[in-house]
Parts: sequence; C-alpha cells; structure tokens
Amino acid sequence: VQFVDHLEATARRNASRVCVGLDPEPLRLPEPVRARPNAVFAFLNDIVAATADLVCCYKPNFAFFASLGVEGPAVLKDLVRSIGDRAPVLLDFKAGDIGNTASHYARFAYEVIGAGAVTVNPLMGADAVEPFLAWSGRCAFLLALTSNPGSADFQRRKTADGPLYETVVTTSRRWSRSPGDLGYVVGATHPAELEALRGLAPDAPILVPGVGAQGGSPAAVARAAADRQGGGYLVNASRSILFASSGPDYAEAARRATEDLRVSLKAQPA
Amino acid sequence: VQFVDHLEATARRNASRVCVGLDPEPLRLPEPVRARPNAVFAFLNDIVAATADLVCCYKPNFAFFASLGVEGPAVLKDLVRSIGDRAPVLLDFKAGDIGNTASHYARFAYEVIGAGAVTVNPLMGADAVEPFLAWSGRCAFLLALTSNPGSADFQRRKTADGPLYETVVTTSRRWSRSPGDLGYVVGATHPAELEALRGLAPDAPILVPGVGAQGGSPAAVARAAADRQGGGYLVNASRSILFASSGPDYAEAARRATEDLRVSLKAQPA
Repeated sequence: VQFVDHLEATARRNASRVCVGLDPEPLRLPEPVRARPNAVFAFLNDIVAATADLVCCYKPNFAFFASLGVEGPAVLKDLVRSIGDRAPVLLDFKAGDIGNTASHYARFAYEVIGAGAVTVNPLMGADAVEPFLAWSGRCAFLLALTSNPGSADFQRRKTADGPLYETVVTTSRRWSRSPGDLGYVVGATHPAELEALRGLAPDAPILVPGVGAQGGSPAAVARAAADRQGGGYLVNASRSILFASSGPDYAEAARRATEDLRVSLKAQPA
Repeated sequence: VQFVDHLEATARRNASRVCVGLDPEPLRLPEPVRARPNAVFAFLNDIVAATADLVCCYKPNFAFFASLGVEGPAVLKDLVRSIGDRAPVLLDFKAGDIGNTASHYARFAYEVIGAGAVTVNPLMGADAVEPFLAWSGRCAFLLALTSNPGSADFQRRKTADGPLYETVVTTSRRWSRSPGDLGYVVGATHPAELEALRGLAPDAPILVPGVGAQGGSPAAVARAAADRQGGGYLVNASRSILFASSGPDYAEAARRATEDLRVSLKAQPA
C-alpha cells in the first residue's frame, strides 16, 4: 500500500491529523516503566497501544534511537514491526547525502527499519533526493521551513526566486515521479508561511511539527495546512504526548493529550 | 586529545593530507573477503592496516553501515575502536536537526561510535549546530559546497550576502566557541570556490571530498586548500582506494592508491 494512501485512510478512519513523535529519552521515561526489560520499547509500545485509534501516523526520530547505543536501530525496527498496519510510519532522519550514499539511507529507512516515508534534507540538491523517489509507494518529506529559531539563519534567506524555503518547494516539485512521493516539512510556528507553501504545493502531504512543546497553535495550523487538491497533512507532537505524565498513568495521559490535539485540529471525517 | 591536534599530528607524522573514506558496499567487497566472518569489518580493518601510515584521517560514512542492517552501528563502533590512536576518525553523518534532537546525534557520534568529529548539515541553522560545539575537543564539519551536481540547486543560490555556501561560512564563524571546533566541507570539484572559502575561514579545517571517483584534481585541491593561518585540510577518497582491486591484492592495491593520492597532493612534512 502507498504511504499517502495509508496516511489518508488512517486519517479518515480515526478522523485525525495527529502524528505522534516517538522520541524516547531514557532519562524522561516514567518511573514505573524504567525497571521493565527493554524499557524504551515497552514504553513506546504502550504509547502506541493507547493512541493508535486517535492518530494518522507515527514518527520516530532516529536521533533518539541512535543515542540509545548500538542496539538502538533494532529497538526501532521492532517498534515499526509492532506498529504494523495500525498506522503508517514516517522515519524522521533528515537524511541528505550524494546519490550513491543516499540510496543506502533509502534502503535503511525502507528495508532495514520498514518505514513508509522518511524526512530528507534537500540542501545537497536533486541527486540527494532522487534515490528516495526511486522507491515506489514511499514518500520523502523535504525540509522546507522548520519550526526552530535557526530556520531564520538560512531557510529564510532571500534568493532571486523568493526565500530559500520557497525555492526548495518550487524547485523540487519538478523531481516528483508520481503523486504523493514528495512531501514537505513546515513548522507550526510559521502559520502564514505554511499557508503560502500549501498554495505552492496543493497536492503534497505536509508534515507540521512544532505544536505542543514548541508552541505552535493547532487551530492556526489546521486552517493553513488544509488540503486544496488532495494533499493531506499531519501535525506532529512528541514530548507533550509521550511525557504527559511521569506516573503510572502515562499511557492514559498520552491518550488524553493526543485526543486534545485531535479535537483542537478540528479534524473531520472525510 | 583535541580532534584538530590529532589530525595535524597525524598529517605531519605521515606527511599526508589523505583521508580514506570507509564506505563498505557488500556487493563490491573483493571476492576473497566475502566468505570471512564479519566480512565488512574484516575488509575495512585490512584497509586500515594497509594505509594507516599514509593517511591523516579515516572517514566512515554512516549510510553504508546503516544499510548493512540493524547490526551496522556495532560494526562501525568496532571499526572505530580498532582504528584507535592510529588516526583520528571523522564520522560522515550530515546530521541536522533541532537542538534537543541534535544533542542526541552528537552523543551518538562521540559517545556511542567514538568518533572525534562529525559532518553536520547546516540548513536548520544555529540551534542545529550548537549542540555539536558543546563537546569540547571535537569538530563539526558543516556542509558548505558539496562535490555533487545537486550542489547547484540550492548551495549556489545567490543571497544578498553572496551565494548560500558563502553565507553558511560567514554566518557560522560566529558560532565557534574555541579554535578548531568548526570545519567545512567543500568539494574538490570546485577548486576556485574552495580557494575563496579558505580565504573566508583561514583557520578552519576543511574536508575536501570528490577526488578519485568523482573527478576532482588533487593538485588543484592542494593549492586551493593550503592553510593560511593554521587551518588544515583533508582530502577524502573512498571508492578509488577501497575498491582499487577486486582480487586478493585488495589491501596492497588500496595502499598504492592511497600513496598515489598522498604524493599527488604534494604533502610536505611541516
């Protein structure tokens, strides 16, 4: 099944545009879970079980698995297998390297880990992105305007064709090989730019990080990201859901935080 | 020991600016090595043993270990441990993510894998780079102008302060906390721009990929990258050394290819 089709089917079924970021930090795991064997996997598995009927996607960020130690990728692979068909999985890697090397990252994301989509850093240009598009049915989400303060350093630099983040979108549209193979990342902290980028890429899926801990407004995001020609969107929250409670009720608290975000996005069944 | 000091000491001792890229591709391993247990590690370990007195650095690219399977990071960690003090290790990861997440990548590169330096993608700005600079004695090499054709897509875009790759250098100089903590990546396929960037960052270490298989000229690189105020450089070759022979003489062939590059760079003892 195509990633975008799985995404849209899950979004409709659960009437949700919430993507839960699966970013484990061992030092922040709820006390009751720390003593369990394979605590990180057990914790994330509980979060998935508590939220799977309220989300449209899960987004593990590789950094948090890499820092676990050399066994991190195995934990991530087991997690993706455990999520199974309940929701699509977008691997947040921000991969970016030249062609031959990028093809190894694509194999890592899709074959080794089993994700359906991956975030890609477009700085190195077409040949850093195209190996991801060679995998049919997957989706590469290119960083356009990220949610962090540093997005002002380079992404907002003016070029002859507008700010760099717009150039990324307009240039990369030409690289797409089939509908839904190319999406974009636009931070919730930039609702006006999100609306402008939606206009430039009406049919592309858009990943919107930065609500919750980073402060973006869910209502503004939902208005700005709403699809015009079939391009869906997914709004990611990580810490505000994972660590909603540090007590034994962490799973129920995560479910409540997910439901609150789902409702605040005013998601409607299609 | 500081990464840059280790780099310069090794460069002087071996009179070499050659960095060997350790990028294993299982399908390209020489026939005689394929049947050995842990073939990738055995192969790379042989390459290191055959070249350690001719190089200034080793640069494993994470993509090639990631695509091996979930056991890839353990192979990489073992390799870095095996290299030990013979030469510094620069992990080519092109990491780029927001602050909290970037700090997990820094821990992965420096603690989990044991590298002394790492390549970083600067697109996301200051807070994506600073977590790497918080580790004293390490070095983050920022992508400025990469060696691939796609570098024309965004890195060469004109901004009010010159092309984006120059803006990356001039902006990021301000982020440095101590000498040698920030380096740059400039492809050998752009010798004129390499010389200009050396002028903008006279004291920074510069990683120059793209000689060998990608076609950059070693002599032009050595002229352009020569340090002016103490900033060293390292010229990377991967495939042209690793796969110099597909027969049982692969280690000697790798040594000859490394020595050829060392001489063509006209490296002199300091």
